[in-house]
This record gives sequence, C-alpha cells and structure tokens, in this order.
Amino acid sequence: VTGIPTVAAASRYTAPVHIDVGGVIYTSSLETLTRYPETRLAKLFNGQVPIVLDTLKQHYFIDRDGKMFRHILNFMRSGKVCVPDDFSEIDCLMEEARFFEVQGMVKQLEQLRRQRAQRLARAGSQTSPPVAQHGYHV
Amino acid sequence: VTGIPTVAAASRYTAPVHIDVGGVIYTSSLETLTRYPETRLAKLFNGQVPIVLDTLKQHYFIDRDGKMFRHILNFMRSGKVCVPDDFSEIDCLMEEARFFEVQGMVKQLEQLRRQRAQRLARAGSQTSPPVAQHGYHV
Amino acid sequence: VTGIPTVAAASRYTAPVHIDVGGVIYTSSLETLTRYPETRLAKLFNGQVPIVLDTLKQHYFIDRDGKMFRHILNFMRSGKVCVPDDFSEIDCLMEEARFFEVQGMVKQLEQLRRQRAQRLARAGSQTSPPVAQHGYHV
Amino acid sequence: VTGIPTVAAASRYTAPVHIDVGGVIYTSSLETLTRYPETRLAKLFNGQVPIVLDTLKQHYFIDRDGKMFRHILNFMRSGKVCVPDDFSEIDCLMEEARFFEVQGMVKQLEQLRRQRAQRLARAGSQTSPPVAQHGYHV
Amino acid sequence: VTGIPTVAAASRYTAPVHIDVGGVIYTSSLETLTRYPETRLAKLFNGQVPIVLDTLKQHYFIDRDGKMFRHILNFMRSGKVCVPDDFSEIDCLMEEARFFEVQGMVKQLEQLRRQRAQRLARAGSQTSPPVAQHGYHV
Repeated sequence: VTGIPTVAAASRYTAPVHIDVGGVIYTSSLETLTRYPETRLAKLFNGQVPIVLDTLKQHYFIDRDGKMFRHILNFMRSGKVCVPDDFSEIDCLMEEARFFEVQGMVKQLEQLRRQRAQRLARAGSQTSPPVAQHGYHV
Repeated sequence: VTGIPTVAAASRYTAPVHIDVGGVIYTSSLETLTRYPETRLAKLFNGQVPIVLDTLKQHYFIDRDGKMFRHILNFMRSGKVCVPDDFSEIDCLMEEARFFEVQGMVKQLEQLRRQRAQRLARAGSQTSPPVAQHGYHV
Repeated sequence: VTGIPTVAAASRYTAPVHIDVGGVIYTSSLETLTRYPETRLAKLFNGQVPIVLDTLKQHYFIDRDGKMFRHILNFMRSGKVCVPDDFSEIDCLMEEARFFEVQGMVKQLEQLRRQRAQRLARAGSQTSPPVAQHGYHV
Repeated sequence: VTGIPTVAAASRYTAPVHIDVGGVIYTSSLETLTRYPETRLAKLFNGQVPIVLDTLKQHYFIDRDGKMFRHILNFMRSGKVCVPDDFSEIDCLMEEARFFEVQGMVKQLEQLRRQRAQRLARAGSQTSPPVAQHGYHV
Repeated sequence: VTGIPTVAAASRYTAPVHIDVGGVIYTSSLETLTRYPETRLAKLFNGQVPIVLDTLKQHYFIDRDGKMFRHILNFMRSGKVCVPDDFSEIDCLMEEARFFEVQGMVKQLEQLRRQRAQRLARAGSQTSPPVAQHGYHV
C-alpha cells in the first residue's frame, strides 16, 4: 500500500466516456454502456448504430432528456431500476427506457407502476394523474 | 460490430447545437428544435427570427428561464408533455410554452390543469394556490 | 427560411450578460436587467451603482444567494412572481427581493403569503413555521 | 446614468473569492466570509487558520458537504437562518454549522428544531426520524 | 491576523483530489477518502486497487451514480449517515454503500430502514414500495 492512488492500466472498456445528453454531461465506460447488447444504447456504443461526436468538446451527443439518463445508466450498472420511493416521473423514464430499447427496464417500470396502482387502490385514493398521452395536435 | 462507437456522418440537422437559456446550457439539434415550424422556437432556429449568438462561448442565447426549457425540449422530441405527477410549476411552464408559441403544449397543459382541478374538487380540498396574475405594479 | 439560424445583429441591450450570483452562473441581457429602473438590480446594470467584474472569468459578480436569483430574473422578464405551487422559500425569496429593491415583487410575495395563511387557516392546520427572525446573536 | 454597468473599483474585501466546497463552486467575498471573526469560517479567510488553495483551478478548497454550504454563506450575509419551510436536513446543516463554528447559526437551528418538535407534538404525529447518531462502528 | 487567507502548506493528504463519479465532479482529499482502510473506496485511493485516471481532465473516474456519492463522502467525513428526514433513496444509497464496501454505513442504513418500517407500521400505512429486486431479465 503506497498510500497514494495507483493509476489503472488504460483499457478501451474501462476508460472514461463523456456523453452529453441534452446538455447534462455523464461519464461512463464502454463496459457499462454495452453491457446489454440488444439495447439501442449498447448499439450506439459498440459500432452498430452511428453516434454523433461533438468534436469541439470531445463528447458523444444524444439528443434526449438529460435528467432521466441517470436512471438508464444506473440500470446498466446494476440491472435494477433504482429510483426514489416517491419517484414521480415513471412515465417520462418509461419514454426514455423505450427510446434506448432497454426491455428489462421497461418491464421493471411496468411492474413498479402496477405495484403503485395497487397500493393507491388499497389506500382508496387515485392520486397519480393520467399524463396527456395524445399526439402533438390535441 | 467493432465494439467501439462509429461516429455518425456530420449533418447540419443532427449536429449538437448548444443553447444557453438563462444560464442553463442545453444541447439539442436543428432536427428537434425546428420540428414544429409554426412555433417561435423553430423560427429562432430555421432562420425566420434572428437569434443572439454568444460568440465567446459559441452558444446561442435565449433570455428565458433555464429550468423550464427542459420540458419545452422534451415536448419537441416526443410531442407530449412529460412532467412529474406532482409537477408544481404548470403556471411557469405555461408562461414559457406561450413565449415559444408551442400551441400543442399550451393545450396539453390546459388539459392537465383541468384534470388536476377536477381531481382536487373530487378530493374536496382546494390546494393549488391562485398565482398572483396582476402586472408589475400591484 | 434558410433552415439554419440567422444570427441577430449585436446590440448592447440584447447581448448575453453573464452574472455569477454566489457561484451560480446566470445569463441575461441589459434589456431584462434594467427593465424596472427604480430597482437596485437595474442600477447595478445601468451605471448608477458600481458592480464588481470578475476579470478572470468575464462575469459580473453579486455576493447573494444563487438559487433564489432565478425567480428575481423571471420577475424581470414577466412582471409576475412565478414560483411552484408548493414553494417553500417565500421568506428567503423575500430577503432577495428586498435586497434588489424590487418593490412590485415584494408586494406580490406579501400577497402570496397572505393567500397561503388564509388557506392554511381554512384548512385549520398551522404548518408554515415562523422563521427565526432575530439577529445574529440569539 | 450611462445605461451600461460601471465596474466597481477593485477592493480586496469585495473582489470575488471562488471556493470549491466538496466539488460545488461558490463565489463570495472576504467581506462576507470574515463577517463574524469568532467563526472558523472567518479564520480560514482572515489568515488565522491556513486554507488549501487549488493552484490549478485558482479556487480555495474546503473538504466539506457542497450542498449545505449554501445556507452557511446565506447566514454570513443576513445573520439569519433562511431555509425552506419544509427543510429536511437540519441535522446535516447543524453538522456543518458546528464544523465552521458559527454559534449564532447553531442556536437558531436548535430553536428551529424545538419549534418543529412542538408543532409535531401538537399535530400528534412523530414524523422526524432520529438520525443514527452513533459512531462509525455501529 | 493579516485579514487575507494564509495558504496552507501543500500536503499529499490534504491537497484537493478531483473525482468524476458518473459525470458529477467531487473534490475531496486522500485524508477523507482513505479514512476507513477496510473500504473499497479507501483501497481505490491508497494504492491497493488501481483506479482510472481521466488524463485529459486530470480527474479520477469512478463509473457509479453521481448523486448518491455525496452521502458516501459525507459518511467518510463524519462517520455518520446524514440524509434528509424524508430521504427516499435508501435502496439506491445502500447499493452504493455496498459497492464501496463501507460496512459501517450499510449497518446504519439498515438501522434507518428498520426505524422507518417501525414508524410506518405504527402509523398504520405501508407507503414505502418494494423496489423490483430481480435481475435484468424479469
């Protein structure tokens, strides 16, 4: 133990990858990003689907919501949906999970929704509002 | 599959566009920003309405509220208002949707307001406060 | 319609002005900042009251709370207090509105406080705690 | 009135001081930071207690929680604890107020705690959980 | 007392260490990071476990959730779990405490969970939802 950090040997799969998602900068690794090969997220980072590179800032760029991507990345790391107990953006997160084609996450979010609906039904009060689902021209 | 990202061919409509909205930096694309041509947001980015460029930082600049612009951009991407179930800034977001002249979003927000008012009426408690609507000199 | 943004002619009143408020960076314009000439905020930006310039970062600097300044700026833009329905920092925002001498905002915040007190009285439960108002040496 | 800002004469006590607190960057002034000389915060900035300088970024560095320092700074500016009505981090803020030895703030936080406990007792429901106070090895 | 800060003598254990955790930048010191030698966090910074260095940005990089790391660092500083009274991310924080092998924190979080479950049982309403624990392929 030297008492100071030992720098890990550089490897393509553990090196930091900077991603600008709608303006929020995330740092992850190809190891995490390509963990579930059938997802669009993995295809964006394993060469199957081309991805935009911001040459000026040396960031990859994805034109999606910045705040929700945190939960997408955490799912890639742990395989579990890990959101606050009082998480109030299930619909928005579902939208992103579908965009990135993370089927396991879509299923867990659907299950979380069912659990909540059952709990609300038990508690006898319908509080979660139906989000306006229709298209642009209402 | 090379196992590493393939950089997409550069195109004017998918390249990252950096926008400083009141101090919050967003990154999107002309494809998203100009999706609904009748909106002021689209006109700011398709040449119809001139927009200020921060030459020092190479960001476009819009003198509006930074936090709410997230929801404006998400609407441009999906055509749907995607806000938290307990979203408490409908009036502020409406102000921005009107500024950017996104009629479809204004309608969906009005509908969301009606749904909430009905739910509150059912629940028998008037909790959402009337925001002081009057002009500067009260 | 060229399909790409048209850069607006530079003007002193619409050019981006970067302000570091307690560490949070805001971008606005002299047009917004000097809209209500009788306020201290306007005097800081129309030459009446000198303002500190961070020459290293080319930002103006104001030694006040960063988070609340968002609402001060939004008032300058719309003339209305636009805060969340469940806004729980009225006292802190009032402190800033007084510092920046924005009388119209002080009045609207006082009115918002009265409305809330009445609603709470109706709902029969005193939840908003009196903030410790006394000076430093309690 | 020139219509454009007048840059204040530089002075050691009003010049911007950048402080990295656990990764969150704050900007204040020696005037604010040294206002209450008996506090450790003042001693860190008036020369009595040495402080670490991040020479690469030209920031002073304090190895403490970034989020809570906002309230410490606001107390230095106004002499009052100004936290949201539903502030749920009194214990964490108390920890920081004690570290920076701001006695007036410690007292006001203790008073705020007592008021809340009384209110909860009146409302007949014990909601604020005792934080695990014991040392590292539980 | 000179009235201006005295720069502390540089030491390896108090110098600022910048860490990019999933995109959120934290600054701490080897003194804090290596305080509990049996944790993986300490081993990452005392040389036992190699750590990735982002050579471009001169930050160490950890591919984990950025938001929760704040509480991990605070535990290293005080030896106590210091989270908001209404903290709704115990499961996500537990995931990180286990990853960084901070046993004392895991125990305090388990205790906090038990206290909450008891309180909820007393209050007679089961509100905290079981997080979907199963693996990726539901």
